[in-house]
Amino acid sequence: MKRQHVIGMFDSGVGGLTVMKEILEQIPEVRIIYLGDTARVPYGNRSKEELIRFGEEIITFLISQGAEAVVAACNTSSANALPALKESYNVPLIGTIEPGARLAVKKTAGGKIGLIATEATVRSKAYNSAISRVLSKGVLPEDQALREGWQQGEQPIALVKSQACPLFVPLVEAGLAKTPEARGIARTYLSGFEDAGVDALILGCTHYPFLTPVIREILGESIALIDPAQGMVEELKAVLAKLDQAQDQNQVAATHSAKESWKLRFFVSGDPELFQSVGNTLLPGQIQEVRRVIWGD
Amino acid sequence: MKRQHVIGMFDSGVGGLTVMKEILEQIPEVRIIYLGDTARVPYGNRSKEELIRFGEEIITFLISQGAEAVVAACNTSSANALPALKESYNVPLIGTIEPGARLAVKKTAGGKIGLIATEATVRSKAYNSAISRVLSKGVLPEDQALREGWQQGEQPIALVKSQACPLFVPLVEAGLAKTPEARGIARTYLSGFEDAGVDALILGCTHYPFLTPVIREILGESIALIDPAQGMVEELKAVLAKLDQAQDQNQVAATHSAKESWKLRFFVSGDPELFQSVGNTLLPGQIQEVRRVIWGD
Repeated sequence: MKRQHVIGMFDSGVGGLTVMKEILEQIPEVRIIYLGDTARVPYGNRSKEELIRFGEEIITFLISQGAEAVVAACNTSSANALPALKESYNVPLIGTIEPGARLAVKKTAGGKIGLIATEATVRSKAYNSAISRVLSKGVLPEDQALREGWQQGEQPIALVKSQACPLFVPLVEAGLAKTPEARGIARTYLSGFEDAGVDALILGCTHYPFLTPVIREILGESIALIDPAQGMVEELKAVLAKLDQAQDQNQVAATHSAKESWKLRFFVSGDPELFQSVGNTLLPGQIQEVRRVIWGD
Repeated sequence: MKRQHVIGMFDSGVGGLTVMKEILEQIPEVRIIYLGDTARVPYGNRSKEELIRFGEEIITFLISQGAEAVVAACNTSSANALPALKESYNVPLIGTIEPGARLAVKKTAGGKIGLIATEATVRSKAYNSAISRVLSKGVLPEDQALREGWQQGEQPIALVKSQACPLFVPLVEAGLAKTPEARGIARTYLSGFEDAGVDALILGCTHYPFLTPVIREILGESIALIDPAQGMVEELKAVLAKLDQAQDQNQVAATHSAKESWKLRFFVSGDPELFQSVGNTLLPGQIQEVRRVIWGD
């Protein structure tokens, strides 16, 4: 019998649940410990140093709870803190940026990619760098590089427009994603993308898929909305396969973990009830109990 | 000739400009250095330790620019950091909480006070404590304590309802205070105050007076809206009178400062243009130049 792996996940709030949903659909056998740092949401205006410190507190907590791999289901943290955090921990850490960049490059037809994200993610230029890395690794299909309208030798794909959306996270956290207010604010943020000729838009914050219906309504059906979660699940599958290989060499672990019966565990640093009520709009009935953690500061 | 005093002021963003407006109307002869910490706005979800560190960076900067007194035009900072900051600095520091509490006690008719503020201000319970202090100092007019409907010996005035409004600061900072979106969100936050019988509502965040028209529209004309700025100006006048007394004993200072000609100086840690554009909606034409400061972290 294969061991049920325990995955740790974190986000500033409910946003990471959009990633959890994708994981549960594609890898239903995993067990997940989720931490929403709702006492400190939003992360979007935090400094790099703060984001590294928060990441350390959270990852240490998730490992103490039994996590064998950790998904940083937060773009702000992935963009600013993940490289430093990877140096501090032995467990595999999976972020949002590389998977998002790979998907965007794959999905754009005209070569013009847009990004909506928090201030800190936009400022980091992490997606710009990742798109360049993806292109230099030759992920770009050959026919795409030769497509009509591009000059020989010209960089065929670029992130042409980034827009910080500082109100989106607090709107989603307050449970207001489906209101006319959210629609009005989204219209303000998204107005520049059509003129820029963008045909693939990275949802560069895990809270934003809560707003997909609103974004679709404004930008129409033809634009590709890139949710990095889909790419993250692929990366997670590869990580779990490696853990399975290691497990085959160690049957003790499998025997041990078979005793436990839980499936999902939720922790927040802020209000458990608000998290449960907003989270259940995305994952109906799945958030049964939410426990509170208190940070040292 | 009296010396033109130099006042330092700070807020997480444009909010403190509502206090500056009040100061300029009532003490037009002062010169003001304003710092908006827009790279780190909102402050509403910050820890006490962070707020103290930010306050130290800002006050040290304002003093280095010549401030003789500093107005913490930010309720979140006043509620959480000011007591600690007062121990570190010799210049007079003026906060929002005591003046706001005094005004609320003066203005309530039925004894039920409401508060809208950031998460961190609500959590601090600073207004609750300040209202108790005001009452214990006998600021309460005698007739009020005897008003009909209150029992003998009962605490006649209380803060009965606090509501955190985490979307208000980002709405104001984005220049969206006058939109239908702001109105819809305000309606969500304010729905409980009428049922609670509140007749005086403390605007416990300096950003909120930007939303006064919207709040009036929802709560009507009969509720007293308490803007601590009015009380802060009284405190500032007393501080300046003391500085004048000190100056009378030292004519050198007066001669020195007569050489300078500036009136208002603005610094931000974030985007100067956004600050100027939003700020000028409150103080038309007064924000001519905004310079950028960069923090060490």
